Amino acid sequence: MIGAFSLFMDVKMKTRLEKLYAAMEEAHLDAIALNPGPTLAYLTGLTFHLMERPVVMFFVPGKDPALVLPTLEMPKLQELPYPANAFPYPEDPSAWNDVFRTAAEHLSLDDKRIGVEPRALRLLEFRYIQAAAPSADFPDASEALGSLRLCKDPLEVQKMRKAVEIAEAALKSTIPLMKIGASERELAAELTIQLLRHGSAPELPFAPIVSCGPNSANPHAAPSERLLQPGDLLVVDWGASFDGYISDLTRTFVVGPVDAELVKIHEIVQQANAAGRAAAKLGASAGDVDRAVRGVIEQAGYGAYFTHRTGHGIGLEAHEPPYMRGDNQQILQPGMTFTIEPGIYLPNRGGVRIEDNMLITPDGAACLSTLERGIVTVG
Amino acid sequence: MIGAFSLFMDVKMKTRLEKLYAAMEEAHLDAIALNPGPTLAYLTGLTFHLMERPVVMFFVPGKDPALVLPTLEMPKLQELPYPANAFPYPEDPSAWNDVFRTAAEHLSLDDKRIGVEPRALRLLEFRYIQAAAPSADFPDASEALGSLRLCKDPLEVQKMRKAVEIAEAALKSTIPLMKIGASERELAAELTIQLLRHGSAPELPFAPIVSCGPNSANPHAAPSERLLQPGDLLVVDWGASFDGYISDLTRTFVVGPVDAELVKIHEIVQQANAAGRAAAKLGASAGDVDRAVRGVIEQAGYGAYFTHRTGHGIGLEAHEPPYMRGDNQQILQPGMTFTIEPGIYLPNRGGVRIEDNMLITPDGAACLSTLERGIVTVG
Repeated sequence: MIGAFSLFMDVKMKTRLEKLYAAMEEAHLDAIALNPGPTLAYLTGLTFHLMERPVVMFFVPGKDPALVLPTLEMPKLQELPYPANAFPYPEDPSAWNDVFRTAAEHLSLDDKRIGVEPRALRLLEFRYIQAAAPSADFPDASEALGSLRLCKDPLEVQKMRKAVEIAEAALKSTIPLMKIGASERELAAELTIQLLRHGSAPELPFAPIVSCGPNSANPHAAPSERLLQPGDLLVVDWGASFDGYISDLTRTFVVGPVDAELVKIHEIVQQANAAGRAAAKLGASAGDVDRAVRGVIEQAGYGAYFTHRTGHGIGLEAHEPPYMRGDNQQILQPGMTFTIEPGIYLPNRGGVRIEDNMLITPDGAACLSTLERGIVTVG
Repeated sequence: MIGAFSLFMDVKMKTRLEKLYAAMEEAHLDAIALNPGPTLAYLTGLTFHLMERPVVMFFVPGKDPALVLPTLEMPKLQELPYPANAFPYPEDPSAWNDVFRTAAEHLSLDDKRIGVEPRALRLLEFRYIQAAAPSADFPDASEALGSLRLCKDPLEVQKMRKAVEIAEAALKSTIPLMKIGASERELAAELTIQLLRHGSAPELPFAPIVSCGPNSANPHAAPSERLLQPGDLLVVDWGASFDGYISDLTRTFVVGPVDAELVKIHEIVQQANAAGRAAAKLGASAGDVDRAVRGVIEQAGYGAYFTHRTGHGIGLEAHEPPYMRGDNQQILQPGMTFTIEPGIYLPNRGGVRIEDNMLITPDGAACLSTLERGIVTVG
């Protein structure tokens, strides 16, 4: 990293820290406790594998943040964009409670309101924090923290565009291998390889889903040894990761000639996807988008077979706010990025899903993904 | 999967369930609550992405297990090896608490001792469970659950051998690219590609660590844009995943001629690794192995630069019991599998780590990994 860019990032991180403190004040939080994950990475640039050794960073306005971590992770602190106090602990777990207590005392955490992220924080870290600050409250700070990451800045959007570009190039390189007799698992492995070849980070947002025939009726199928057969629908749900930011796309192919009803549901899902992209604009709500998409599928008589919400936010995580559900009244604002992914799943026969990545702009919206959505026959 | 093998797996899973109930009785646990992860996969074969929708399976001896999950995940239940009651919930989170409560009432969970895995369970799932059984206790069941997975059966060992074989083949294919001017990130991407080409599952146990020069002094470095330079040490820490089971290896290369002290620490780490492999045998304790390894490094005067334990168990997870620490009196038993990975890290200069995968056998021990441990020069 060149010096000027590094300095730019340090300033950016300090700004994020100030926004965190403002969001904490609004939510009446005295402190925030984070374990490793996207929010910690967003605020500090630090990443750790989530393992059996608890790592927790405490943020308290007006004080330097404090980081409890294993001694062997200390070299990572050199990457920190602002001063922080480290509380390292040795390998023997019997010493860990004391180190957490020292950190909590240093920050006067007891009987405070310490915001946590239930989706990220494990009971492992939570029990150490709770033992160190036994009179504290631990309100859910997901909304306050989520609000920081909700609207992406131009540099974040640029990384997401790149993640879409990598994903699209990888799929194009994999299509020639979608032949009758190829297995779901082979195609998933090849697609993963192509993602890396085209520049994705090795830690993908999720392992690609490649599911054909009846397996495609399971929205979250794991690739199996099933071989592509004539008459199959073939769902491919995949994404790339670029500098921490992800893409998440789905296309559904048909293998040779398929049953007329399968063609029909493909066309309905195309229409639902188009309706969603049209509805996703500045000022609409997440619920509006879901209703536009679901309306198309319901009107065609397949409402019962669209078993999930219309989409979810994307960014540092493959699933994050805003969630595109009918009950979500969140108004779409510039910089929000999310998926639109209608599907119809006919049990034991097959499923179709078509997923694109959207960005809300000051003018309306942009679809970041460009791959053909119509029926493409392979095999 | 052919029918006979599937039947075999169903029987195996039922046996595991009986062992779970026996371990629960010994630990005085009325119930176990698991979220998706290795233990759930071990007991049920079920895998889920850990996302914003809580998935929890409850086990109570004498009753069918109960699974709370999103409606869209219902197709996965077809894979279950024994009967279970499903409590599906819709997309709207305001309905989730009620569904958890119904499941808890069905199993009479309130005021019971419900064992949990703090390392896996998130506050997200825990708070739903707690709200559904507000008078229950939630003791740490890690030891009881860990004991089930501690000794691998022959089929598990076979998968781990395969994971080692894939990892070794992938490294061999990557060595020719370790040239002066190649970046850590490029090499990590290529190694990942080779892991997949050689048959690893797309979800690796961890993203490979490739760190050179001063970066190699950080045991958990993330691959950067740094280019290989003459005089560098080059640490590569990588693993494959085969049918859920993993390998975890490290080798340290030298780039061109390196400083005499770096050669010296490489040789010391080789000796420490050999001492660990010799000490790891049936009837020794985990602590004995750590002491054998650490003794070599301390005697050579580098004790302060070996900043982590000697190793950790491997299996369905990249880190699991037994932990190879001096204070761990766990006696090594047939079927235990773990790493031996001494290291010496000289800040700002470079580090060496050499990691092998061990299996305790009825006769003593076997080292699953075979790659050259001596100095290999690249560049």
